[in-house]
Amino acid sequence: MSKSGFSQNLLASSGKPHTAADKIPIIARGAVSDRAKQTLNLIEKFVEEECVPADVLFHAQLGEGEKRWSTYPPIIDELKVKAKKAGLWNLFLPKNHFKEGAGFSNLEYGLMAEYMGRCRTASEATNCAAPDTGNMEVLAKYGNEAQKKQWLTPLLNGDIRSAFLMTEPDVASSDATNITLSMTKQGNDYILNGSKWWSSGAGDPRCKIYIVMGKSDSNNSNVYKQQSVILVPAGTKGVTVKRVLSVYGYDDAPHGHAHITFENVRVPASNMVLGEGRGFEIIQGRLGPGRIHHAMRSIGAAEKALDWMIARVNDPTKKPFGKQLSEQGVMLEWIAKSRLEIDAARLIVLNAAMKIDEKDAKNALKEIAEAKVLVPQMALTVIDRAVQSYGGAGVCQDTPLANMWAQIRTLRIADGPDEVHLQQMGKNENKRSAEIRGKLDRQKQIGERLLRENGVQQKSKL
Amino acid sequence: MSKSGFSQNLLASSGKPHTAADKIPIIARGAVSDRAKQTLNLIEKFVEEECVPADVLFHAQLGEGEKRWSTYPPIIDELKVKAKKAGLWNLFLPKNHFKEGAGFSNLEYGLMAEYMGRCRTASEATNCAAPDTGNMEVLAKYGNEAQKKQWLTPLLNGDIRSAFLMTEPDVASSDATNITLSMTKQGNDYILNGSKWWSSGAGDPRCKIYIVMGKSDSNNSNVYKQQSVILVPAGTKGVTVKRVLSVYGYDDAPHGHAHITFENVRVPASNMVLGEGRGFEIIQGRLGPGRIHHAMRSIGAAEKALDWMIARVNDPTKKPFGKQLSEQGVMLEWIAKSRLEIDAARLIVLNAAMKIDEKDAKNALKEIAEAKVLVPQMALTVIDRAVQSYGGAGVCQDTPLANMWAQIRTLRIADGPDEVHLQQMGKNENKRSAEIRGKLDRQKQIGERLLRENGVQQKSKL
Amino acid sequence: MSKSGFSQNLLASSGKPHTAADKIPIIARGAVSDRAKQTLNLIEKFVEEECVPADVLFHAQLGEGEKRWSTYPPIIDELKVKAKKAGLWNLFLPKNHFKEGAGFSNLEYGLMAEYMGRCRTASEATNCAAPDTGNMEVLAKYGNEAQKKQWLTPLLNGDIRSAFLMTEPDVASSDATNITLSMTKQGNDYILNGSKWWSSGAGDPRCKIYIVMGKSDSNNSNVYKQQSVILVPAGTKGVTVKRVLSVYGYDDAPHGHAHITFENVRVPASNMVLGEGRGFEIIQGRLGPGRIHHAMRSIGAAEKALDWMIARVNDPTKKPFGKQLSEQGVMLEWIAKSRLEIDAARLIVLNAAMKIDEKDAKNALKEIAEAKVLVPQMALTVIDRAVQSYGGAGVCQDTPLANMWAQIRTLRIADGPDEVHLQQMGKNENKRSAEIRGKLDRQKQIGERLLRENGVQQKSKL
Amino acid sequence: MSKSGFSQNLLASSGKPHTAADKIPIIARGAVSDRAKQTLNLIEKFVEEECVPADVLFHAQLGEGEKRWSTYPPIIDELKVKAKKAGLWNLFLPKNHFKEGAGFSNLEYGLMAEYMGRCRTASEATNCAAPDTGNMEVLAKYGNEAQKKQWLTPLLNGDIRSAFLMTEPDVASSDATNITLSMTKQGNDYILNGSKWWSSGAGDPRCKIYIVMGKSDSNNSNVYKQQSVILVPAGTKGVTVKRVLSVYGYDDAPHGHAHITFENVRVPASNMVLGEGRGFEIIQGRLGPGRIHHAMRSIGAAEKALDWMIARVNDPTKKPFGKQLSEQGVMLEWIAKSRLEIDAARLIVLNAAMKIDEKDAKNALKEIAEAKVLVPQMALTVIDRAVQSYGGAGVCQDTPLANMWAQIRTLRIADGPDEVHLQQMGKNENKRSAEIRGKLDRQKQIGERLLRENGVQQKSKL
Repeated sequence: MSKSGFSQNLLASSGKPHTAADKIPIIARGAVSDRAKQTLNLIEKFVEEECVPADVLFHAQLGEGEKRWSTYPPIIDELKVKAKKAGLWNLFLPKNHFKEGAGFSNLEYGLMAEYMGRCRTASEATNCAAPDTGNMEVLAKYGNEAQKKQWLTPLLNGDIRSAFLMTEPDVASSDATNITLSMTKQGNDYILNGSKWWSSGAGDPRCKIYIVMGKSDSNNSNVYKQQSVILVPAGTKGVTVKRVLSVYGYDDAPHGHAHITFENVRVPASNMVLGEGRGFEIIQGRLGPGRIHHAMRSIGAAEKALDWMIARVNDPTKKPFGKQLSEQGVMLEWIAKSRLEIDAARLIVLNAAMKIDEKDAKNALKEIAEAKVLVPQMALTVIDRAVQSYGGAGVCQDTPLANMWAQIRTLRIADGPDEVHLQQMGKNENKRSAEIRGKLDRQKQIGERLLRENGVQQKSKL
Repeated sequence: MSKSGFSQNLLASSGKPHTAADKIPIIARGAVSDRAKQTLNLIEKFVEEECVPADVLFHAQLGEGEKRWSTYPPIIDELKVKAKKAGLWNLFLPKNHFKEGAGFSNLEYGLMAEYMGRCRTASEATNCAAPDTGNMEVLAKYGNEAQKKQWLTPLLNGDIRSAFLMTEPDVASSDATNITLSMTKQGNDYILNGSKWWSSGAGDPRCKIYIVMGKSDSNNSNVYKQQSVILVPAGTKGVTVKRVLSVYGYDDAPHGHAHITFENVRVPASNMVLGEGRGFEIIQGRLGPGRIHHAMRSIGAAEKALDWMIARVNDPTKKPFGKQLSEQGVMLEWIAKSRLEIDAARLIVLNAAMKIDEKDAKNALKEIAEAKVLVPQMALTVIDRAVQSYGGAGVCQDTPLANMWAQIRTLRIADGPDEVHLQQMGKNENKRSAEIRGKLDRQKQIGERLLRENGVQQKSKL
Repeated sequence: MSKSGFSQNLLASSGKPHTAADKIPIIARGAVSDRAKQTLNLIEKFVEEECVPADVLFHAQLGEGEKRWSTYPPIIDELKVKAKKAGLWNLFLPKNHFKEGAGFSNLEYGLMAEYMGRCRTASEATNCAAPDTGNMEVLAKYGNEAQKKQWLTPLLNGDIRSAFLMTEPDVASSDATNITLSMTKQGNDYILNGSKWWSSGAGDPRCKIYIVMGKSDSNNSNVYKQQSVILVPAGTKGVTVKRVLSVYGYDDAPHGHAHITFENVRVPASNMVLGEGRGFEIIQGRLGPGRIHHAMRSIGAAEKALDWMIARVNDPTKKPFGKQLSEQGVMLEWIAKSRLEIDAARLIVLNAAMKIDEKDAKNALKEIAEAKVLVPQMALTVIDRAVQSYGGAGVCQDTPLANMWAQIRTLRIADGPDEVHLQQMGKNENKRSAEIRGKLDRQKQIGERLLRENGVQQKSKL
Repeated sequence: MSKSGFSQNLLASSGKPHTAADKIPIIARGAVSDRAKQTLNLIEKFVEEECVPADVLFHAQLGEGEKRWSTYPPIIDELKVKAKKAGLWNLFLPKNHFKEGAGFSNLEYGLMAEYMGRCRTASEATNCAAPDTGNMEVLAKYGNEAQKKQWLTPLLNGDIRSAFLMTEPDVASSDATNITLSMTKQGNDYILNGSKWWSSGAGDPRCKIYIVMGKSDSNNSNVYKQQSVILVPAGTKGVTVKRVLSVYGYDDAPHGHAHITFENVRVPASNMVLGEGRGFEIIQGRLGPGRIHHAMRSIGAAEKALDWMIARVNDPTKKPFGKQLSEQGVMLEWIAKSRLEIDAARLIVLNAAMKIDEKDAKNALKEIAEAKVLVPQMALTVIDRAVQSYGGAGVCQDTPLANMWAQIRTLRIADGPDEVHLQQMGKNENKRSAEIRGKLDRQKQIGERLLRENGVQQKSKL
């Protein structure tokens, strides 16, 4: 058995000279600890040797018909055992904020997340899958001891899964002040009414807890104090998973994106997180690192798409018009642009991760927004090129490409559409206007004085 | 007088809280020395307070008619005095290769070059202007003592200027093996015949030395050994500056892009650099850092364009249809995208600079090519948005935008068109194909074994 | 009951002033007969009042599990009855080549196809659905009387459906000379061995006949004479529908894109179409009009997406940040660009249709290729904007957008990927090079003579 | 001498089989008269045989220094003589509105304008150059008899030239209600004060008349009634041509884009066009056909750029890396895309021209806006590809490409920037929202009724 404890030794046998750690961009290398580099190399091995090959089994083990949403692929438990044994567990909790995690920085974990993004099973196998990651952060950061004991512990152990219920179908919930699910205090309970959708993960039979954002005080003059976050155990009376949403034609079983209704759902007040009216505070604290995770996994997906594209254009059995596709200039340009675009996007994300590490997510609003907007568009472009290079095989189940494209397409919408972020980024950047106008005015005045002092006139007069 | 020795104190008076050093992307910050940070702050002051205001005078002092190519703006000498005094001189020579320079790394100088790119005069004022920088590198690296004494010393002092003559009008010289200018040994001399163009800087009356690439051994079976580089003093008999090329409608006086003919030009054999047949070696050694300089200056130009755009969309006298342009969503999106695209491009260049610093330019071929291709396209996009936001003022002499656009447009062609670099990048990336195909094959085999072992079949059968 | 015979009167009741005929671009209007205009208006009514509302029922009636590929939605037969009664049947067969059709030109039918592209059911309801349309053209044009009687008649009656089997999984079949399915003469039969995929429509239980392209003479020195086309009844011994391919997760039931294997399949020689070795002739004759149909339906899909986008951005219940999306400048720009891009693409297709009408598809190779490449890319862009404007609702089953996107994405691949067409178009255009170089040379010579005669010199000399 | 009366017979000698008339897109052909086709063929000959070769002489004859703005190239008069003799004169005045012109429709003249756009001299040689064309339309349509006699007659004869002064430097004049030049009635005169820029053509010594838009009644409650248009002879006291604006470094001599100041300029009230307060009416009537002219000339420029690109990539002396550029896939794709984009844009313009011909420009607002926005962006893309294919020769004076690019870049700004037009187009398209929302709602209701009636439920419930 190999040192990693994994049964295959795929990477070693390839004679590949460069480890994952060697491939860290030089500009980021200095900030990555040796321990993180070793874990990164281990993650690459685990992903490429164990998880990627297991993806096909994972899909084959998915339930059909009635069993679609009541079972999950057994292979995932086997992978979890291997990951835990190899120390690849809960890697995501950033060291400067959480004692429960593996002690890596956001930069370090980001590098690992890239490899996890190369397959379907790795994130879950290492207990680093969304939305559990963000939910664990919420519980670790804002939960009280009882809440932690009841929900955080089993989540950290990978015994249960969870969902985060914020978005609603009937309002423009890209603006979270619009959410309407009502939370009414009644004695020691809250009564919840309303509906949520895109409750990702709620399709899974292992999903036991919903973290629910709702409106507890719709008359509060401060629109950012009207919301609260409360814990609702799955299966509570009045909670109905109405249907599962598809993403393009995929249902993402066993995970599932649920449309859930709440009809007079009664939850004890002790399930409130942090306190009434503090919902915005919680969701804002939740978003930063999660965006880095999504972004880095998308980078990994783009790298994988590029791998697949290169494999195709060098497939000796596919020579349209007598020429290997890799001899076609247009294909080479697609490969080159993909390389360049991936590399640029990665640096944007790593820089954002370091900016979070410097202090916290608030410190990195600009950098996180840049990653949020840039990466999915880049990854969609790269994947779509790969799809096109495969022709019919690219759009169907014979490559992972079409599915990856659909997953990443949702990232241009999730946590706010690109356009909302761009407007916000534009407004923030535009705050420099007074300073800039002042500088340009002064430079103009000095310039005019220089002209006068030197007795010359500006050019281009008739 | 301020500490910097500059007469104005423009930045300080603006109450701006962030210095240039503060604005270094966090991912690069750890690799920048304190001395470099101090110099960077000084450079920003010098550029914004001294050089930018002087640009207008520089243009006004350009000669007209007969004097176009026999004079140069006196302001440049004043700026050079100030720069030298402030220690801002020859900053470009990288510390790990040259003792003559200011002792900065490519990363550190790259950060400085960004500020120089914000104006017309700063690079020359600090003796960091192309093509002198590359030429000085060639002489310092490959020149013998006599050559250094005669040409490198006055160049380092800023007493003369120089030109690099490689490209030819009648061949596809993006492929340097095609160049035809002949160098024939005759006794102790070489006789040169042929023509060169895009000899940038040769229009300047201060340009005293041409570094000329030609073919000394066209029969050599190794096509990369046929070329030599020789030093030709401007004004040598038989050398004729035939005309100056325009860039769009700009003649770039006093610099000038010359079309030069060589008719039986006789040069002593001692002017040969490094030795006959070593031309390729020299030009390849010359290219890496120069591309970082160009790229970082272009980043600076893009930042300046964004500044100007923000100034315009907040101009209270320009309210089409009753609305400040900065309230228009499309303008905010342009600003946001520009911010994001500039930031991504900068990280690509800084990463390339660090990769050079790690060892040398050969070590960073991929990273340099990425910067070479990405940055000009990004800068052109950002500048064009700024042009469009200004309307008529954007395309004419009333802003620096149109001129900057034209200058940077040439970078998509100079040192090889984008398309040549993309093909090369694609081919290099495609070299991973055997490794990738091997990995995917093995993963597929393991996946099929897993299916067999678990007794399930791949999905989607009818 | 309304004059159209349709039960609803949706368009009339909307008080909409413009009929479909009124909306024909003025540049094409003169070439459209009054009868075609009347039919076009009827088609619009049929589509909007009958078919679009029926789409939801169509999807709800699809079989699940075992019944997925053995049933089809009953609503389709009801619609077919209505369409036939209204005279909306077999509209696609172009008047100048086929007596069996409704007697419209390609231009006229193209205009109708645009409306059919606005929904799932209309093409089939009017017996104008691919691949039957192209298959009927093949049989009408190249089939003998027996073949016509057996297969064309029931197809024209809408009693059966058909598939066209050309593409193969194991070769680069974008180059049709690569196909390998073997057809070996054995007595009065042909024996077929090989496999086909993307056999669209073969999933449908009503699909009774396959038109199969194979290699009957792989030693023929003329690579375009090696192929033949033969008729294979569905269910022939040795034919196995191995699986159905998905398109971004959609299985397109009941249609289905089948992967089919042929193992010693025996077919009477009388099933050969046109004669052995004439396969290329047949597939080339089949492609032209079909591409116009696809293109115009895609235009219809894009129009529908724009409709849906406009509906969303004006939805009074969706006001993120207190503002209707239709007040956002970026949304208005998306709408405007979509309008413009759709209109330009439509003109390209209509021009191509007229070019076919002038003579035949060979006459219109350039124009058809332009439509083939431009339209899907345009439609994907427009639909993706609509998806983005809907957020979560855009990627799931709550709008028709995600499904339309996936369908049209395949058009960038089907009948040859964009890149193959672009290379061919480039080569054809490049054939003008000798003529162009000759003209430019002569103009240059005349120009130089004019300079001499007028005693002036070209400008820009130093 | 050839039948055309032109001295060369360049096109005939090329053995080119297709005439300009043959190349009219088939979709437009039916609407073009035989006389227009003959004139079109003659225009092509005149442009290619006479004008294009003369362009180089035109540039060589431009004055330098002091003579820059007091002379013009004599060749232009020679060409005008030839054009008049061949009947190629004042072709632009549309037949259904003006008796003074050559009697062609906007569609027919549009086709001719495309050829004129292939060179610098043809528009002026045929008296079809902006801004004279629009100014002649204004005078013919709105001028009184005295005004026509004094100014229209010499303009129609090509004896003088003219300028249109609307845009102002100090306001956002893309919104024409912002203009501030004051027109104060004083006895029988108006007194004008203010400044104008981008007064194109005012640099030419032959420019004798300015058509000036100003504010005569700034207190009028109707902001579209505050403006008037008045005729100001060049050289009137108080009028100063302050300077000439450059366009990316080009001064466009002898035409020139002037910045003009008005200081107490006194003009007789009889110079008022149409009447006080009717300025908006006049400028709106002026814009439609002019935009078609600009657009079609830009199409011609793009065609020319494509010609030049094809010439370059087939230049046997330019083979980087041993390969003709026309063998490079990327180059072929550029050629193909250029062909496609030009063809699509042309159809958009021709359709707009026909829409004007149907009635008038108001009838064609959408179509004209589409042409206005699409064509310059397309042409810039095509020209930029050509520039890139030429490398250094592309950006300098050795090809017409850089200059064409700069000219067309201004069209994205002139007569309102793209963004203003896109917002307007978006708003207009958005007016369909009530109709669309009504239709979709009714379709949804019918769909739901169908589900109920058929006893089925929508799919995708859990």
